[in-house]
Amino acid sequence: MAHDIESLIAALPEVSFVTDPARVKNKSRDFYWYSPILRDALDDVRADVIALPATEAQVAATLAACHALRIPVTPRGAGTGNYGQAMPLAGGVVLDLSALTEIRFIRWGSARAQSGVRLLDLDDAARAAAGQEQRMHPSTLRNATLGGFVCGGSGGVGSVTWGGLRDRGNVLAARVLTMEAEPRILELRGDDVQKVIHAYGTTGVVTEVEIALAPAVEWIDAAVAFEDFAAAAAFGHALACQDALLKKLVTVLAAPIPQSFLRLLGERAGAGSHLVLTMIARESYEAFEAMLRAYRARLVHARAPDLIDGLLPIYEYAWNHTTLHALKVDRTITYHQTLHPAPDSVRTAVELHARFGDEVLQHLEFVRFDGTVACFGLPLIRFTTAERLREIEAIYDASGCPTFNPHTVTLEDGGMKRIDPVQLAFKRETDPLGLLNPGKMRAFHEPDYAPAARGVHLFAGGSGESTSRSTGTS
Amino acid sequence: MAHDIESLIAALPEVSFVTDPARVKNKSRDFYWYSPILRDALDDVRADVIALPATEAQVAATLAACHALRIPVTPRGAGTGNYGQAMPLAGGVVLDLSALTEIRFIRWGSARAQSGVRLLDLDDAARAAAGQEQRMHPSTLRNATLGGFVCGGSGGVGSVTWGGLRDRGNVLAARVLTMEAEPRILELRGDDVQKVIHAYGTTGVVTEVEIALAPAVEWIDAAVAFEDFAAAAAFGHALACQDALLKKLVTVLAAPIPQSFLRLLGERAGAGSHLVLTMIARESYEAFEAMLRAYRARLVHARAPDLIDGLLPIYEYAWNHTTLHALKVDRTITYHQTLHPAPDSVRTAVELHARFGDEVLQHLEFVRFDGTVACFGLPLIRFTTAERLREIEAIYDASGCPTFNPHTVTLEDGGMKRIDPVQLAFKRETDPLGLLNPGKMRAFHEPDYAPAARGVHLFAGGSGESTSRSTGTS
Repeated sequence: MAHDIESLIAALPEVSFVTDPARVKNKSRDFYWYSPILRDALDDVRADVIALPATEAQVAATLAACHALRIPVTPRGAGTGNYGQAMPLAGGVVLDLSALTEIRFIRWGSARAQSGVRLLDLDDAARAAAGQEQRMHPSTLRNATLGGFVCGGSGGVGSVTWGGLRDRGNVLAARVLTMEAEPRILELRGDDVQKVIHAYGTTGVVTEVEIALAPAVEWIDAAVAFEDFAAAAAFGHALACQDALLKKLVTVLAAPIPQSFLRLLGERAGAGSHLVLTMIARESYEAFEAMLRAYRARLVHARAPDLIDGLLPIYEYAWNHTTLHALKVDRTITYHQTLHPAPDSVRTAVELHARFGDEVLQHLEFVRFDGTVACFGLPLIRFTTAERLREIEAIYDASGCPTFNPHTVTLEDGGMKRIDPVQLAFKRETDPLGLLNPGKMRAFHEPDYAPAARGVHLFAGGSGESTSRSTGTS
Repeated sequence: MAHDIESLIAALPEVSFVTDPARVKNKSRDFYWYSPILRDALDDVRADVIALPATEAQVAATLAACHALRIPVTPRGAGTGNYGQAMPLAGGVVLDLSALTEIRFIRWGSARAQSGVRLLDLDDAARAAAGQEQRMHPSTLRNATLGGFVCGGSGGVGSVTWGGLRDRGNVLAARVLTMEAEPRILELRGDDVQKVIHAYGTTGVVTEVEIALAPAVEWIDAAVAFEDFAAAAAFGHALACQDALLKKLVTVLAAPIPQSFLRLLGERAGAGSHLVLTMIARESYEAFEAMLRAYRARLVHARAPDLIDGLLPIYEYAWNHTTLHALKVDRTITYHQTLHPAPDSVRTAVELHARFGDEVLQHLEFVRFDGTVACFGLPLIRFTTAERLREIEAIYDASGCPTFNPHTVTLEDGGMKRIDPVQLAFKRETDPLGLLNPGKMRAFHEPDYAPAARGVHLFAGGSGESTSRSTGTS
């Protein structure tokens, strides 16, 4: 489908556009190549043009012009997503929001900023202004934007204490532009923020986000080695369950992940060792050391974050960075996303570890989940065929660990976000023509779409009801 | 048994003593009269004299002199315990530590003070010096001392976020004087603090405590009404499970507790309503309001703590203050202590509510417990006979809710503290003659004592191993 890009550019003399093919290609992609399925499927996806608005007014003007010309618009932050969240399946405009970087306020307990602000910059500002920090961030802290995280992410470093973006009280408000002839500005607060969280920008363009902050903490990075995977997983779980130990990260990496893919960490762990990575508050570190003794754990790395020893900040070995490091070493690696629910998260992880051996390398991220301690599994998979990948997912599902499929671009097939009637109605209200990030919400684009029954979603639709206990999508 | 008090006073000219019978009687008791059993059993318990040392050196001198004269010593804070923790069963000296009030330091994340400091004063100092507050305190914040809380308490307001005193990282260190001819000073750190936490001062006299602090929060008191007890309990549980909602208290009070015993709160609730009391951080309050709407909950009270409207701070209606208010109205009321374990805490509470009707009025306190959300039950009981009280406890036990018996003075029969070999060895080391708070640790005083098997303890002995998963006491 050819879009009338020339008219668009002519209509918006104040907006910067990028038309250089190499830059357009670059801004049309994210880390979709984590998945061999998406790598094949999305390699040709390309915007016709990149729009770089400098103000919210320019965003509104761009949306109005695109609406008039029926040009699809796919909003984008830094492009650090892993499933093509911000890739323009129907071409048209990629709306790069990275120039909207104003911080509106930093108060005690909360901050509000434009969606293009880099998370690291917001973190620095929160520390400088008020001794605070973001409750959570992805492992891509140094690159990702606030809006990209909220609209495309789910949680990350900090979720072991604060839960995810899904949880009431983490994302406090969002300012949203609708995709209409005359775009409206909506202020979503309270449970209404669910209508845009992890919706890939399909339900409006988020221009500002208000988030809760936590008091700043002096974190100490640490890595602990075990000779036995079950012992590492049990320690990770026990650490995550320590309610009085202030922590921001509890990651379990089965051997040979450290040795094969995380060079310096692997050397420190030694051959065959499984690692637990963590960030512990200085005031909790002595209690952490007591726990190491009680568990006969071997500390192989510990440092304040300002020390330089060749290692990255520990969070850059965790969450989706683990996969990134592996892919840098071995392009045949891919991954999977699952939830090991409480209270059996360790048991299922140990069983699946034993079952798959070297084909599926366990990577666990402990989180607070609806008042319990659970863990997400982000195992590294030695990819052979798409069929085998589906078999692995089916085995996980059968083991009680639901799949959040990272090898699909649609919200429904990904499975994190429940597209309920409230969500769908909101989509119809904010984007009646379906021009925002088209192809990502099946329930909107496919009139006869009937979602498969699903036990667990991470994100509500618009209703704000707890999702993980729901048993369907309608 | 007659103790040579005259010689003791003569040997310690620098130490203040109280011998006035009325004051000695007053300083020999606590809130043991919460229990009709203890009221009968302990009414005649009396020290021979109250010692009021002004310095740690005077404490040491008092211990040495008492050791030489074989006079029992029972350390005491403000006497806000409920089970005779600090009542001198064998007479002798009550060692009132309330003059030891020096604050050693307040740092970011921790504070250290002498054990006689009042918790409210420590809280005020932490706020003033560094914008911090204690992670948890009993409902007796305004009276209780730091040492009394750590040695006689278990948790309280704040435990819904930080767990209890039992949890690694809440109590960081304790300075302990031994009961020997020449008292030694021990600095217990890490898991070794378990040797004195909730040990009633039987294992040494704690003169200083180091605790973790949390950043100060602007709390908003709130009370929410429901017409149905199950709905109130479910809301309390859901609120406690909100990982992203910063809170310090989640209390459920079945009708007619508010109406019969908590005058103003009961009036606001209205006849027949069940209440959930909570303290919510200002930055989480909007998310809390969203939750109220989602649960169709009726807010009957909300205020910042500095407003004056005749109501006490909300925490003074919770924890053991609920029982206190009831006893002020009706002296036939007593109570029970139990744990409603995760994940069935609401189910067991609702079942027991239906089973007992007006005889046992449900009072739940939600807490973090080993990484889960559970609740303690502190139900109000319309007392008839000791036999019936035991029957009620047995019904609770059979329902999966273990009893922490508040109608006994011994650690073992109370059941919170596991007296393991490490703990017992530490007792023999610090108090070889058994002069410290005699009669409270059966395993020490009764050579043939064989503890009953018990599924749950709150406090480790000295070993620091997780106690709630242990299945025995030896």
